[in-house]
Amino acid sequence: MYVSKKARVGKALIAESAVVLGESVIGSGSIIDVNTIIGYPVRSKIRGLDLGENKSYLEALDAVSGGSVLGSGVHIRPGTSVYEGSVIGDGVETGHNVLIRENVEIGGNTIIGSSSIIDGRVRIGSNARIESGVYIPPESVIEDDVFLGPFAIVTNDRYPMSRKLIGVYVEEGAAVGANAVLIAGVKIGKRSIVAAGSVVTRDVPPESVVAGVPGRIISGREEFERKKKEWESGGVRTWMQ
Amino acid sequence: MYVSKKARVGKALIAESAVVLGESVIGSGSIIDVNTIIGYPVRSKIRGLDLGENKSYLEALDAVSGGSVLGSGVHIRPGTSVYEGSVIGDGVETGHNVLIRENVEIGGNTIIGSSSIIDGRVRIGSNARIESGVYIPPESVIEDDVFLGPFAIVTNDRYPMSRKLIGVYVEEGAAVGANAVLIAGVKIGKRSIVAAGSVVTRDVPPESVVAGVPGRIISGREEFERKKKEWESGGVRTWMQ
Amino acid sequence: MYVSKKARVGKALIAESAVVLGESVIGSGSIIDVNTIIGYPVRSKIRGLDLGENKSYLEALDAVSGGSVLGSGVHIRPGTSVYEGSVIGDGVETGHNVLIRENVEIGGNTIIGSSSIIDGRVRIGSNARIESGVYIPPESVIEDDVFLGPFAIVTNDRYPMSRKLIGVYVEEGAAVGANAVLIAGVKIGKRSIVAAGSVVTRDVPPESVVAGVPGRIISGREEFERKKKEWESGGVRTWMQ
Repeated sequence: MYVSKKARVGKALIAESAVVLGESVIGSGSIIDVNTIIGYPVRSKIRGLDLGENKSYLEALDAVSGGSVLGSGVHIRPGTSVYEGSVIGDGVETGHNVLIRENVEIGGNTIIGSSSIIDGRVRIGSNARIESGVYIPPESVIEDDVFLGPFAIVTNDRYPMSRKLIGVYVEEGAAVGANAVLIAGVKIGKRSIVAAGSVVTRDVPPESVVAGVPGRIISGREEFERKKKEWESGGVRTWMQ
Repeated sequence: MYVSKKARVGKALIAESAVVLGESVIGSGSIIDVNTIIGYPVRSKIRGLDLGENKSYLEALDAVSGGSVLGSGVHIRPGTSVYEGSVIGDGVETGHNVLIRENVEIGGNTIIGSSSIIDGRVRIGSNARIESGVYIPPESVIEDDVFLGPFAIVTNDRYPMSRKLIGVYVEEGAAVGANAVLIAGVKIGKRSIVAAGSVVTRDVPPESVVAGVPGRIISGREEFERKKKEWESGGVRTWMQ
Repeated sequence: MYVSKKARVGKALIAESAVVLGESVIGSGSIIDVNTIIGYPVRSKIRGLDLGENKSYLEALDAVSGGSVLGSGVHIRPGTSVYEGSVIGDGVETGHNVLIRENVEIGGNTIIGSSSIIDGRVRIGSNARIESGVYIPPESVIEDDVFLGPFAIVTNDRYPMSRKLIGVYVEEGAAVGANAVLIAGVKIGKRSIVAAGSVVTRDVPPESVVAGVPGRIISGREEFERKKKEWESGGVRTWMQ
């Protein structure tokens, strides 16, 4: 276990193989699991590490890290790294092998699924559910209660490699299906639905459902809710005994 | 190395940084590689861990873990976690950074590729080949000899976020191409082929080939085999010297 | 820290939890970060490890590893594994949880994004930018200055499971969008563009732009550059304050 002397740690469970760097703050009831790193420094600081000093590697990282801020009741699962400058709300849970880079803000009780990558300078609201394998690049905003299905991919470069980068804006209560791609700069309106496997190239108005490659509006949220009710009340097909 | 006193371990190779929890069973000739965890407890148990006790984190996990069961000749590669309640057959190999959650059953000699996520309550047969980056959610069944290509994504929520979850059923000998998406509840028939990048929204009959978004039947397995033979007997194009 | 006695290590920073095996070479100014493994042995050697010897697991791996060769100023980030027989040029950086298997050659200053998998027997040029979550299978060549967007997936089996495997050849300066799939055997011509979410089944001529499922030529690079200029000079939409 390596916990920086500069860190302020509440009554938390920290695994023997965890690393907490710099002025990190960890709230009470949080769990920092095995093989995790909290407060990992940004690239520019690591490139500038003085190789000549007589420190261990973790001491060298610790000396330059500004730390991350984690609320209470947070669970950081095995293999996850959180960069310095990120602020994670109460009750947030990450899956395994998650990467949360610098200047990410995550609201309370949001879940970040296993192997997801929040690639820095991203704002995610409260009670959002980011499933496994999701990718969110810099300059993106995900509002409260949003669902991003497994391996939903957000981009921020419309004409790679461009110097003008902008992520996407997903409004409150929207749901994006598995493996959908949201192209740089689009806004997904409030409570809209993006079908699995779609490629969304244009803004999606609130309360609409888009599907296909490229994504086109196929119905409204109301119809989606009607079908959903039908599906939920239908006979249960089940594969497992 | 942390190996629970409750675990039964055959003549296996266990890395110094590996963790084996609870009543895990590990067969002879198995390899438990660096930075792995076997028998990781389910969420409800971890939320309830008593932060007040005077134990190390691993001791606390160990106390609540029911363990995993691994056959003989299993290789769990670096960075992989296996949850309690999962049963892994003889000769199974995982890649790196794999996640196998609770109540997963995997038959003998199946391969689970690097970064794949088997997200709990899944049954996978024998001699299956799950490539890298595959996602399989709860309530899914993958039969013997199935091939799931790299980053094939299975879903279990047809109208997210619904309370009715059902994965997919992939019958014996079927092959699903890279980055294809299988929508919640579909059955992929015996020896069927799903082309790379397809989005399968409806059941696929046995011996058929589907492609596109949404997936449509484009031919039968017989024609696929004919083309395959042609391709295999054709001139070898090779990029590497 | 485990550094093989057979390894030749320049003035580098090596984390306490890093492992460097066999005759690995690590250039000056390189950083080998926490929970990484350099020189991990190929499958056949691991299957043959003598379980009876009185060695630790790392000593057993070390004894059979031929090592990897890393240039100077390389940064291998946390959770990354590099197999024996791979050669990584000066200034290369990997993200977190990357997997680079055996017989991979990577030119100078190339970036391999987090969670990417370079699955063995692959040649990647200099100054290439492989984003997060990219998958590149054996028998693939990626030339200099190529951009592969997040979760771009390359395949090497046209008729799975076939014994004839061939990856793709991506020529100099081409850019492949996020989550695109490149089917086994295709060549992506010099400076061509593959739109995000496309599935490329046929060769793409130089200087062209392809999009869709299956991918079709929609314009040339010239038009792409014109639109890019327009986009870059357009009003800045920004989601973050």
